[in-house]
Amino acid sequence: MSAENTGKKRNNNYKSAKRASKTYSAGGKNKKNSAKSVKKASRKSKPSVKVAVLGGLNEIGKNITLFECEGDIVLLDCGMAFPDGDMLGVDLVIPDFTYIEQNIDRVKGMVITHGHEDHIGGIPYLLSKMSIPIYGTPLTIGLIGNKLKEHNLFNSAKLGVVHAGSTIKLGCFEAEFIHVNHSIPDAVAIALHTPAGVIVHSGDFKIDCTPFVGEMIDLYSFARLGHEGVLAFLCESTNADRPGYTATEQTVTSSLDYLFNEAGKNRIIIATFASNVNRVQQIIDCAAKYKRKVAFSGRSMVNYMSVAEELGYLSVPENIIIDIDMLSRYSPEQIVLITTGSQGEPMSALSRMAYSDHRKVMVGEGDFIIISANPIPGNEKTVGNVVDELLKRGCKVIYESMYDVHVSGHACQEELKIVQKLLKPKYFIPVHGEQKHLRKNAELAQSLGIPRKNIYIGDIGSQIEINENHLKLLAPVPAGKVFVDGLGVGDVGSIVLRDRKHLAQDGLIIIVASLDVYDGHVISGPDIVSRGFVYVRESEQLLDEVRERARAILDECADNNVHEWGTIKNRIKDDVGKMISRKTRRFPMILPILQEV
Amino acid sequence: MSAENTGKKRNNNYKSAKRASKTYSAGGKNKKNSAKSVKKASRKSKPSVKVAVLGGLNEIGKNITLFECEGDIVLLDCGMAFPDGDMLGVDLVIPDFTYIEQNIDRVKGMVITHGHEDHIGGIPYLLSKMSIPIYGTPLTIGLIGNKLKEHNLFNSAKLGVVHAGSTIKLGCFEAEFIHVNHSIPDAVAIALHTPAGVIVHSGDFKIDCTPFVGEMIDLYSFARLGHEGVLAFLCESTNADRPGYTATEQTVTSSLDYLFNEAGKNRIIIATFASNVNRVQQIIDCAAKYKRKVAFSGRSMVNYMSVAEELGYLSVPENIIIDIDMLSRYSPEQIVLITTGSQGEPMSALSRMAYSDHRKVMVGEGDFIIISANPIPGNEKTVGNVVDELLKRGCKVIYESMYDVHVSGHACQEELKIVQKLLKPKYFIPVHGEQKHLRKNAELAQSLGIPRKNIYIGDIGSQIEINENHLKLLAPVPAGKVFVDGLGVGDVGSIVLRDRKHLAQDGLIIIVASLDVYDGHVISGPDIVSRGFVYVRESEQLLDEVRERARAILDECADNNVHEWGTIKNRIKDDVGKMISRKTRRFPMILPILQEV
Repeated sequence: MSAENTGKKRNNNYKSAKRASKTYSAGGKNKKNSAKSVKKASRKSKPSVKVAVLGGLNEIGKNITLFECEGDIVLLDCGMAFPDGDMLGVDLVIPDFTYIEQNIDRVKGMVITHGHEDHIGGIPYLLSKMSIPIYGTPLTIGLIGNKLKEHNLFNSAKLGVVHAGSTIKLGCFEAEFIHVNHSIPDAVAIALHTPAGVIVHSGDFKIDCTPFVGEMIDLYSFARLGHEGVLAFLCESTNADRPGYTATEQTVTSSLDYLFNEAGKNRIIIATFASNVNRVQQIIDCAAKYKRKVAFSGRSMVNYMSVAEELGYLSVPENIIIDIDMLSRYSPEQIVLITTGSQGEPMSALSRMAYSDHRKVMVGEGDFIIISANPIPGNEKTVGNVVDELLKRGCKVIYESMYDVHVSGHACQEELKIVQKLLKPKYFIPVHGEQKHLRKNAELAQSLGIPRKNIYIGDIGSQIEINENHLKLLAPVPAGKVFVDGLGVGDVGSIVLRDRKHLAQDGLIIIVASLDVYDGHVISGPDIVSRGFVYVRESEQLLDEVRERARAILDECADNNVHEWGTIKNRIKDDVGKMISRKTRRFPMILPILQEV
Repeated sequence: MSAENTGKKRNNNYKSAKRASKTYSAGGKNKKNSAKSVKKASRKSKPSVKVAVLGGLNEIGKNITLFECEGDIVLLDCGMAFPDGDMLGVDLVIPDFTYIEQNIDRVKGMVITHGHEDHIGGIPYLLSKMSIPIYGTPLTIGLIGNKLKEHNLFNSAKLGVVHAGSTIKLGCFEAEFIHVNHSIPDAVAIALHTPAGVIVHSGDFKIDCTPFVGEMIDLYSFARLGHEGVLAFLCESTNADRPGYTATEQTVTSSLDYLFNEAGKNRIIIATFASNVNRVQQIIDCAAKYKRKVAFSGRSMVNYMSVAEELGYLSVPENIIIDIDMLSRYSPEQIVLITTGSQGEPMSALSRMAYSDHRKVMVGEGDFIIISANPIPGNEKTVGNVVDELLKRGCKVIYESMYDVHVSGHACQEELKIVQKLLKPKYFIPVHGEQKHLRKNAELAQSLGIPRKNIYIGDIGSQIEINENHLKLLAPVPAGKVFVDGLGVGDVGSIVLRDRKHLAQDGLIIIVASLDVYDGHVISGPDIVSRGFVYVRESEQLLDEVRERARAILDECADNNVHEWGTIKNRIKDDVGKMISRKTRRFPMILPILQEV
């Protein structure tokens, strides 16, 4: 975006994605045809369809669902999740693909609801192991393509572009893409027309009758499907515990307008999700109105905006975007800086500004900072810390619910009810959420008249079989959390994490000694090395005592002809461990290392 | 409480605290006398008073403030804080007492506003280093006494009981204790009558016109002080960003009544703060109304209730409390279990119940669980996890703002404004809170007419001098965060934490070799030991490469007569580190250990 060249290059690559679409998708069938084929199927006795949610239940993120009918398999979404606080050193979490690998010959394709990380972030890891054609709307496929390029997987990928309103055929499935409102453009729900009946997956959605850009959610299609008959509805649950409606994006427009006015002579810095293209559009429009230039900060912000602009999802007035390096040429009141870091992520642009660690932007008095996002649960503290640092530097900061500068991308209870009532599904399966969200969504469905026995709250890996007569629980399929750490995928497991936790809590003490190969007597050492345990200079006495204790054990073992190293090490571990815990009430990892000389 | 004996024993010990009061406090002077003495002082030209906030600014917890006038020093509160997520392995955080130690001969005493951990938790660590008489209301002193017993410091402590409404003399200071509402009984604000003028510290407070137990906050005294003239007001800021009023405790009463009715035949389990004695009283009263027995779970809950009951702060109908071991003798509808764990703390009773790890209570369908507390910022995720686990077990769970089962203990904006306007201080100093809270409170004061130059937002350790003519910033005094880990106080510092963080992220690789004392050639090893890095069995090849690389470096050094161990170790660290990061994009700690044989 900031450089014309980059834009062009990306645009070219994007076209190759479009070509792929023509090759691999059976796409473009219209709704009437698809409806016909389903009607034909319904004359026969209907088979069952199996549903296995491989990710996104009892967790936030890594959404992935598997549908199986008459031997064919279709996948929906393939996201990643961010690690919990106890997954030390883990960069990201992806689904376990074992079951897909085991059945890859039957997988007809994967459909994607939208381009958020929790729906597409796992795709590179999947495609590095196997080849599956992937279908999504233009922006979604554009973002996936970008991601695959980073992993050097783009050229071998089969990507198909499908526009909302279209239907594609995948084995015995027909996948109908239905436009919905969400916090990223081009989001869809998917209606899978199967020989067993129609299954609708909501993706992530909300009802916005007056979105800032584009159309309102395609409620007509939901109504039509409901009228024709829906076997099952898999419905997202993110805001299922919130009563009422999510406010329209237009409330943000008014707030931004008010705040741009308030900002006066100050520089405006706005942090928001890089993927929230329409929010960025609102900010750009507001900047244009108030005659400010717009710069972007943060790698993901720049990336998203490039893709969004080249695909036509961002309409940028001429000469409004400036490179971040040009900031100094303008006075504060001429600038809006749009940045990442709305979640207080430590390495993000806004955090760096807050901690004076940003190479190009120094903040202070004269900066009017708007955080146009809510903290995702778990991030409250980091966001709070960033706000505090900005305030300490004298910035004016608009955060949390101070001015309606953010609305959620997810449906609240009244919206969920409307879509559920339009679809009138026989079976209801809440997805995307922790247990409390799933339960609330299930309660909503029950309050709308769906019998409890037709509602299924599952866990990842649980598999159900549904048809017109029953919803049956089958044996679970492999599913779980696979940790990505650096280049390693799956090589950090429970033992490694347990050790990291232990080391993090109390550090370690290493006891090294060289023993005589013949009689086991100490030839050198024991030497004591500690890390993360105590400040060594002030604890020399304690470490001396550790050395003496270890030496005594080694001598005793040699004198008594105990030469089995496992036994000797365990005695050192136990004795030294007890001594340390008695003296310090700490439990460092104790690592005896013996060498034979 | 559950055992009559314990109650009596504690009661006896408590009396000794009362005796101490008579010995050490000059207490009991009434307000008129105090007012007189201040008037006398005001005839002379007034000196200055110095204020140094040693803890509680730009942080939550470890509140402690130091006042200095005419050479005398008075301390107010001495709390602890819970460690942030990046303080790995740290149990708790206490203030730096250096400045107090340096001036201990001038310290006349410490006054305590209330018995919460963030106001009293640092006392044992202070008293283990020096002797300072401590004054507080009966419950506060009871709780401090209990804490000192655990640290074997009770017998040497000088504890003085002062009732709200009374004044004590401490050097040239007179400290007037003023009743306030808060989420623990017996909370007070303190008006320090000094030769320089009156300084009021709010402690933690709210205005509850209809508290569940006891009187409304003593607004008369605030009004009187304001009328007589207040030099400075140090005002808590916890809820300064919340508009409106904190609802009265009576709203909780109605909600509990409604929910006890709703619970029907289910067992009721309520989690709340152990220190919220009045909340527990509400629950007990409600239990009595619905003919349920009450049991307690969680060590701190049992401790607090013992102290509260023996001091008369809890009124318990006969035969209503049962021991937790007796639960099985009653049917679910006869039981209310009051438990700790409202913040999702991993080792707390409620967490143990949720994860099936509680020795005495198994939860499941038939349990109606109420979390009567809001998550403290930073705890949202852990509380959410506990709720999810309880829901998965089939419990009905009331959490967050579902039913007004909790009200805050802190004043919102309208309440802050009332107290500020009653006191009409010359100088306003917001305390207790992060930067955003302090700023909001300062903005409130400014909106009420206090000039910006008379408002001071400080940081811990910053010291100001105030008198009728000026507010002047002095050189800062030592202040900071001292980490307590096990029995160690202050022996975990930045180096230890940095190592723990490093180990937590990527683990470590130890490279051990024995070298010939004469020519430096390898005699044994190098052996490679790793922890928290990769799953070793699946990474043998990588570790073999590490061994080969290390061996090559050692040989090369020996061949080239490089015998300086620091040099050799650095080369191993650098080379192996680069190799590992290239192959894995991870950065484990690399620890070469050499032994001479």
